Amino acid sequence: MANPADLVRRLRELLPVQALRTDPADRLAYGYDNSRRQGMPCAVALPERREQVVAIVQACRDTGVPLTARGRGTGTTGAAVPADDALVLSFERMDAIVAIDPARRLAIVEPGVLNGDLQAAAAAHGFFWPPDPTSAPWSTVGGNLACNAGGPRTVKYGASRDNVLAVTAVDGRGRLFDTARPLAKQAMGYDLARLLVGSEGTLALIVEATLRLLPCPEASRALAASFRDVAAAARAVTRIMAQPATPSALEFLDGKSLALARARAGDAVPAAGALLLMEVDGPASSLDDQVEALRAAASVDGLLRFQAAADGAGRELLWAARKALSPALRAVAPKKINEDVVVPVPRLPELTAFLDVLEAESGIAIVCFGHAGNGNLHVNLMYDPADPAQAAAAPVALRRLFEQVLALGGSLSGEHGIGLDKRPFMPQALDPVALSLMAGIRQAFDPDGILNPGKLLP
Amino acid sequence: MANPADLVRRLRELLPVQALRTDPADRLAYGYDNSRRQGMPCAVALPERREQVVAIVQACRDTGVPLTARGRGTGTTGAAVPADDALVLSFERMDAIVAIDPARRLAIVEPGVLNGDLQAAAAAHGFFWPPDPTSAPWSTVGGNLACNAGGPRTVKYGASRDNVLAVTAVDGRGRLFDTARPLAKQAMGYDLARLLVGSEGTLALIVEATLRLLPCPEASRALAASFRDVAAAARAVTRIMAQPATPSALEFLDGKSLALARARAGDAVPAAGALLLMEVDGPASSLDDQVEALRAAASVDGLLRFQAAADGAGRELLWAARKALSPALRAVAPKKINEDVVVPVPRLPELTAFLDVLEAESGIAIVCFGHAGNGNLHVNLMYDPADPAQAAAAPVALRRLFEQVLALGGSLSGEHGIGLDKRPFMPQALDPVALSLMAGIRQAFDPDGILNPGKLLP
Repeated sequence: MANPADLVRRLRELLPVQALRTDPADRLAYGYDNSRRQGMPCAVALPERREQVVAIVQACRDTGVPLTARGRGTGTTGAAVPADDALVLSFERMDAIVAIDPARRLAIVEPGVLNGDLQAAAAAHGFFWPPDPTSAPWSTVGGNLACNAGGPRTVKYGASRDNVLAVTAVDGRGRLFDTARPLAKQAMGYDLARLLVGSEGTLALIVEATLRLLPCPEASRALAASFRDVAAAARAVTRIMAQPATPSALEFLDGKSLALARARAGDAVPAAGALLLMEVDGPASSLDDQVEALRAAASVDGLLRFQAAADGAGRELLWAARKALSPALRAVAPKKINEDVVVPVPRLPELTAFLDVLEAESGIAIVCFGHAGNGNLHVNLMYDPADPAQAAAAPVALRRLFEQVLALGGSLSGEHGIGLDKRPFMPQALDPVALSLMAGIRQAFDPDGILNPGKLLP
Repeated sequence: MANPADLVRRLRELLPVQALRTDPADRLAYGYDNSRRQGMPCAVALPERREQVVAIVQACRDTGVPLTARGRGTGTTGAAVPADDALVLSFERMDAIVAIDPARRLAIVEPGVLNGDLQAAAAAHGFFWPPDPTSAPWSTVGGNLACNAGGPRTVKYGASRDNVLAVTAVDGRGRLFDTARPLAKQAMGYDLARLLVGSEGTLALIVEATLRLLPCPEASRALAASFRDVAAAARAVTRIMAQPATPSALEFLDGKSLALARARAGDAVPAAGALLLMEVDGPASSLDDQVEALRAAASVDGLLRFQAAADGAGRELLWAARKALSPALRAVAPKKINEDVVVPVPRLPELTAFLDVLEAESGIAIVCFGHAGNGNLHVNLMYDPADPAQAAAAPVALRRLFEQVLALGGSLSGEHGIGLDKRPFMPQALDPVALSLMAGIRQAFDPDGILNPGKLLP
C-alpha cells in the first residue's frame, strides 16, 4: 500500500532541490542514530519552513509512507531510526532562535536549534533552559523534547517536559496547530504541549517551541563526597533528598567507574567504593549554608571524605572523574549497552545490590553511574558482542535488569526514552488500560499511523 | 435515552445506603458551586472506595446518565454543576492522606483530602505542596487538580499540573488505571497524569494522586511596594520578573482595591494608586540580598514606598490589604463577576489601561488585583444585577474583556478553569485544530461522553 517511489516524485515537486536527498550515501547516513541500529529510508527531507513540513506530512499520508523525524541522531534508543523505505525528515535546517524574552522568561525556537546554542543565547540575557543532557553541544531542542531529555540539573530544575510552555506542531493529518498560548500559567483545556513532550515523534512534529527560561543563579559551588561502598553512597543520596537544600546536581559513580576514570585521569579521581559529585547554586550568600547542609546529610557511616571546591579550578578537579568516565567506558567496551533506568531514591541501595548479583550471574561487568538525585542510573553492561557467551548473556541480563527495576517501582527510562530498544518491555511497565488510552490518543493525532510507527508504544 | 430512574435503582443495589442520596434537599445542595449556577441531579453518590467509583461510572455508562464529579464546590466556573438529572459524584468521603514520603519528596492522597489538611501533614515533615489557592482550607486536592489550581506561590513553584507525578483514575468506560510510575523523572510514554490535570472531570475521575512535595524554605520575608499609579506598578512587575531573584509571591492590587481595603482595615493599608505585595524565601542568609534585588527592580518612576517586614507581625501588617480585600469586595457588590484572566507580563500595562476604558464604556466599576508575577489578574466587574442598565452592560463588558485579553496574547483563565462560564469563548481562544485534537482525546477516554459533558470543550 505504501508507495515510496510516488512519495519521492511528489516531494521533488514540493521541495527545492537542496531540501531532498535520495542518494544512497545520504539515506544511509540519516538511517541511524546513537543506538547503532540502521534503517534505509527512501529519501531524506530537510525542510526550511513549517509550510514544507505540512506539505511533507500530507504527501506521506497520501502515499501511505511512514515518516520518522530526527534532530541530530544522538538518541540511544533507535527512536530516530526509520523503517526501511520510510521517509526521514531532518529538522537540521530549521534551527532559528526566534526570540529570547527575559521579561516573559521564555525562548521561542525552531526544533533544529542545538541545546548548547540556545543555552549560549539565553545566558547572554542571564537565563538558562534547564535540560542539559551530556549531548547538549550536539543535540537539538526538538530531539530533547521528543524524548523528554534531562541531565544533571533535572534534580533541581526539571526535565524537558517541565520546561516547555507551548509548541506549534503538525499532526498526522498534516494540520499545523498551536497547542496553547505561551504563558507560564493558564487553565484552558488539555495540555497538548506536554503531551507531545516525550512522545518520540509519534503524535505530531514540533516546528516551533516556546520554552520556559530560568534566571541563572548568582553563584554555584562543586562538592564531592567519597564513600567506602555503593550502599553508603546510596544511603547518603536518600538523606540528601529528604532535606531542604536541593542540590543542582547529584551525580553518582560506582567503584568500577572510579577505577576506570582513575586509569584515564589519574589521582585527581579518588580511589573509593563510590563517589557523589554535587553542585549547589543560588544567591552567593546562601552557598556556605547549603554546603554545610549537604555535608551533614552526606555524613553517613561509610563517608570517607567530603570536599567543597573553592573556585572554578577546584570544580574541574572534583568533576574530573565524571568527565573522564564516558571516554574511559567506550575505550574498555565500545559496544557496551547503556541503560538509563530509574528507581525511587530510597530503593537505590536495593538496585545497586542487585547489580552485583546480576554481574555475578551474567559474567558481564556492570558499571553504574548517573543522576542519583532522581534515582536515575546509567547502568552499563560492558559486554563484548564478539564473545559468544557474553553475547548470549547480555539480553538475558537486560531483561532481568528491567524486571528488577519495575519490581522496585521504577521506570525503564529516565531521559533516553523507549524508541525501539525498550518497546518490548512496555506491556510489563505500564498499565494495560493506560497503554490502550495512549493508543487512542495516537489515533486522534495520527489516524493513519504514519508518524514514526513502531516506536514507543507496543 | 438516558434513564436516571434506572441508574438510581442500580446504585441502590451497588452502594451502601449512606453512599447514595436522593432527597431533593441533598440534590439541591450538591447541584451548585461557587459560580452561583444550579442544576438538579437525579442523585448524589458518595463513594468511599475506588471500586465504588468504578461501579458508579459503569452504571452511568449502562444507563446513559452523565456524571459530574465534585470536591467541595469552591470552583467559580460551574465545572462542578451537574446537568439536570445527571448524577453527582462527591469525593468528600475519599479523603485519606495515604502517605507522606520525604525521601521520595511525594505525597499520596485520595482526591477528597482538603488542600489545607495536606499542607499541614506535609509541613510536619518539612515539606509543602505548591498550589495554595485562597480556598485552600476548604477546597480538595481533586478539585485543585481538575482545574489546575494555582495561587500566589505559583510564580515561583508552579501550579497543580507542575506538581503532580502520577494519578490513578477511572476512565469513561469505567476502567481503573495508573497513569505512570510515581517518579520525579521518567521518559516512558505519553504523560497521562498531566493531561488529566485541568481537564475538569471530562476525561477520567482521579481516585488517587501522587503529588510532588518541595522542601519548606528555611525563611521568608514579606515586602510591599506602593506606586503612584497602576502603570508604574505594572512596569515594576516586568522588571522584577526579568531579574534572577524570583519572588515566592508577587501580588498586585489596584487603587480601587486599596480604597476598599482601607475602608475596611484602616490606615494599615496604604493610600496609593497601586500596591505590590511580595514575598521572598530561601536560605535565611540569602534574604537580605533578595530583598535588595527586588527593591532595585521595583524602583521605577512612580514608586512611592518600599517596605520589608522585619518579622511575622510586620508581615501581617503589610498583607492586611490583601486580607481585607475579598470581604470588602463582596460587601460592596455581592453579585460581582470575578474573572481570572492572564496576559504576558510585559502586556500588563496595556491590560490595566484597557480596564479604565472598559469601566468608562460600561458604567460598571472594575476592581483589579491578583497574581501579577504570572500576569494573572482577577478582574472584578462590580455590577448590580438589579440595575437593568448594569445587567445589560455586564455580559458585553465581559466579552470585550476576553477579546482584549486574547488580543494581548493571553488566556481566558489562569487557575479557575473554563467550566460552563467561559466555554463559549474557547473557539476564539484556541486553535481549531487543537480543539479538534482535544475532542479526539476526550473520545479516547470517554467514548460515550458521560463524564461532565457540556463543560470545558465547546
